Amino acid sequence: MTLAPVLDRIDADLDASVERLFTLLRVPSISTDPAYAKDCQKAADILVDDLKSIGFDASKRETPGHPMVVAHADGEGQHVMFYGHYDVQPVDPLELWDNDPFDPKLEDAPKGKVIRGRGTSDDKGQLMTFVEACRAWKAVHGSLPAKISIFFEGEEESGSPSLIPFMKENAEELTADIALICDTGLYGDSTPAIITQLRGLLGEEIKITGPNKDLHSGMYGGLAMNPARVLAKIIASLHDETGRITLPDFYDGVPELSNELAASWDDLKFDEKDFLGDVGLSLPAGEQGRRPLEMIWSRPTCEVNGMTSGYTGEGFKTVLPSEASAKISFRLVGRQDPLKIRENFRKMVSDMVPEDCNVTFHDHGASPASQMSTTHPAFDQARKALTDEWPNAATFVGCGGSIPIAGHFKKYLGMDAMLVGFGKDDDQIHSPNEKYDLSSFHKGIRSWARILHKMSSDG
Amino acid sequence: MTLAPVLDRIDADLDASVERLFTLLRVPSISTDPAYAKDCQKAADILVDDLKSIGFDASKRETPGHPMVVAHADGEGQHVMFYGHYDVQPVDPLELWDNDPFDPKLEDAPKGKVIRGRGTSDDKGQLMTFVEACRAWKAVHGSLPAKISIFFEGEEESGSPSLIPFMKENAEELTADIALICDTGLYGDSTPAIITQLRGLLGEEIKITGPNKDLHSGMYGGLAMNPARVLAKIIASLHDETGRITLPDFYDGVPELSNELAASWDDLKFDEKDFLGDVGLSLPAGEQGRRPLEMIWSRPTCEVNGMTSGYTGEGFKTVLPSEASAKISFRLVGRQDPLKIRENFRKMVSDMVPEDCNVTFHDHGASPASQMSTTHPAFDQARKALTDEWPNAATFVGCGGSIPIAGHFKKYLGMDAMLVGFGKDDDQIHSPNEKYDLSSFHKGIRSWARILHKMSSDG
Repeated sequence: MTLAPVLDRIDADLDASVERLFTLLRVPSISTDPAYAKDCQKAADILVDDLKSIGFDASKRETPGHPMVVAHADGEGQHVMFYGHYDVQPVDPLELWDNDPFDPKLEDAPKGKVIRGRGTSDDKGQLMTFVEACRAWKAVHGSLPAKISIFFEGEEESGSPSLIPFMKENAEELTADIALICDTGLYGDSTPAIITQLRGLLGEEIKITGPNKDLHSGMYGGLAMNPARVLAKIIASLHDETGRITLPDFYDGVPELSNELAASWDDLKFDEKDFLGDVGLSLPAGEQGRRPLEMIWSRPTCEVNGMTSGYTGEGFKTVLPSEASAKISFRLVGRQDPLKIRENFRKMVSDMVPEDCNVTFHDHGASPASQMSTTHPAFDQARKALTDEWPNAATFVGCGGSIPIAGHFKKYLGMDAMLVGFGKDDDQIHSPNEKYDLSSFHKGIRSWARILHKMSSDG
Repeated sequence: MTLAPVLDRIDADLDASVERLFTLLRVPSISTDPAYAKDCQKAADILVDDLKSIGFDASKRETPGHPMVVAHADGEGQHVMFYGHYDVQPVDPLELWDNDPFDPKLEDAPKGKVIRGRGTSDDKGQLMTFVEACRAWKAVHGSLPAKISIFFEGEEESGSPSLIPFMKENAEELTADIALICDTGLYGDSTPAIITQLRGLLGEEIKITGPNKDLHSGMYGGLAMNPARVLAKIIASLHDETGRITLPDFYDGVPELSNELAASWDDLKFDEKDFLGDVGLSLPAGEQGRRPLEMIWSRPTCEVNGMTSGYTGEGFKTVLPSEASAKISFRLVGRQDPLKIRENFRKMVSDMVPEDCNVTFHDHGASPASQMSTTHPAFDQARKALTDEWPNAATFVGCGGSIPIAGHFKKYLGMDAMLVGFGKDDDQIHSPNEKYDLSSFHKGIRSWARILHKMSSDG
């Protein structure tokens, strides 16, 4: 089966592809907020219907949380399994969006057209690149260049509580020769990137309680314990003056960067001034003595993602708060053990809580870092296919984000995974005004068409 | 003019007095939130009408903020000026209220009936004790036992921005022989208390900004500055290990407790186990080596009243926040200079903000501590009158709260002030389910009737 007419078909069908993506983007499938559970169902239904229209045997599969979408289509050659997620991040602060986050628009921007809206880049736009590539193959040749399974989840942005049980229960059905995952980005603007290492993630919420109600800070201030001060002290103690994390044994299993990888990353000529400048910053703020790229790809972190206590509305209220809470996450690397780190974190925090306060912990997921097995032939095939499509040659890179699915595929299904994606650093994923370049979407579809071709016997 | 029939009239009229208070309590006059500006107007109108009905020459006086209520009535003897405030604290968290905070109820409680609702104790219930005492004098004798002016403001809970300009512009009209202020409490359950020292208050809001938007903590975490961590470090640094505040020169002007006052306070047999036990605590948490009563009456404090950063909703969002803010207040004593402390605080915070962050400050008011001049004869007259009404003899005490009006009366009008109030420690002012004991209201009215009598030539 030839590639050229498939690429032509993709070009000709682009407007319709964008329209199909818009239908999915209009559904506010925010997985972390129970108020949007029906919308998650609706997004899954749209995907099932669309996959059926291409000829997939597709179904929505209920879980205790949001449903999975699983689809299969026969084809020649290798069996590949494609993964993406249809759920999206919350949209607050809503007032910082220029438009309704769930009313997607195609906008002119300085570097070309962009698709604007929540989930455009993370991950609805990316997962549709693969679906649209399959649609084009099917339209042109009447069949696919591989046996293809598709697996979409709806809980990726909320810790994937149903994922592992579902994978275990459906292991045979979900196992293929290799998993393809589209939830990452290009390196810079035009260098296609294949991720070979991903940071893990540990999410913890802590709540410190003191007085049994908010107190008057005049009547009680000076005598009563203030949980906001306790929380601030705990957070302040998590890093030392050099930016290192102070948890006992935290750096166990953190590898030093190999000379080879260090040299390869140096070749990328990462410009931290540009990278930080785009978000209004200028100075690398991580561990002293580390390369900027190392700080985000291969060093662990501890960040406060949110904190709240007392009166936070307009004006002033002289209250002594009864509680204070924080959402704290760790990005993990190498062989760091998330469960051991959780245990040490909880112990350290508990030890700092004074006698008159209590602390409760809420688990928001834990996944180790992932290291890809680049010896699988798909890595070389994809590198060639991507190099054919893009101005620059494809490269192997690290990723600071956490996409635990790759590790799960290896652990529970014995399946290698390859991560290829077309997002850009300025896509503002997880932030207001998220966008996905129209060129990412268009060339993304063409890239998957090429990768599937390269992996086939005709490639 | 005789006292006995006035007290009888107060007893007979109690139900109607409660009903009149309810009318005022039903108005959500939350001064700190601009959404309730019209309600502040309405509360002022109700008071003007009520004072007119007793025979006062009463008027609502506009300011750039919420209006003042000023009223005058002739009478024999001394000229007293009574001050109270008709504005109330916000009600959040609303879900912790058992009833609508602005639908007041008379409830049976273990220690007797209570009036439940926002503002019952702070300060609508208290200010109405004086109004009702005047009403009873007027009803029985047709005249008042003193020349009486009344001055109610509507911005006490939001830093009183219009107060000083208004006092300066209307100095002659507002000046009397002494000011009477009803915004404080009994000592314990049944000991009437006359406040002789009050802490001052400095309110500051700080906002730390870093990245120009919320970032993905995977893409940026480890490289980008996190304002929540910067804020936590600043808050954690405000106290040392012994509970002392670390601002430079902070303790300038803080007097040591005199032996005489220490002995007098020791006589009060303050039970910190009970006081803290009522709010779910057990240990004095202030400066090491200080008496519990000293911690709240005569030592300065620094408290976090609120803080917020990043994602604080349901679930988890791995965001690296673009900003973090906190409301912080200082209670001041002795001759501490609020403006000097503000300057030192802002400098200390600014010095701790790293190069890639900015800090902005918002001023939420500053007032020094107050020391009353107990040589004015009204103090002795009130002590006797209160001792006649209550089971225990009246006593001179300190107060941890900040009622800057007393200092303003002295500074701008050259007028001494005397603070007498009937609130209780468990009134939950500034908290959900605020209440005022019906006995506080009833005996409070009787107390003012007695004080006015004692201050008159018949007393």
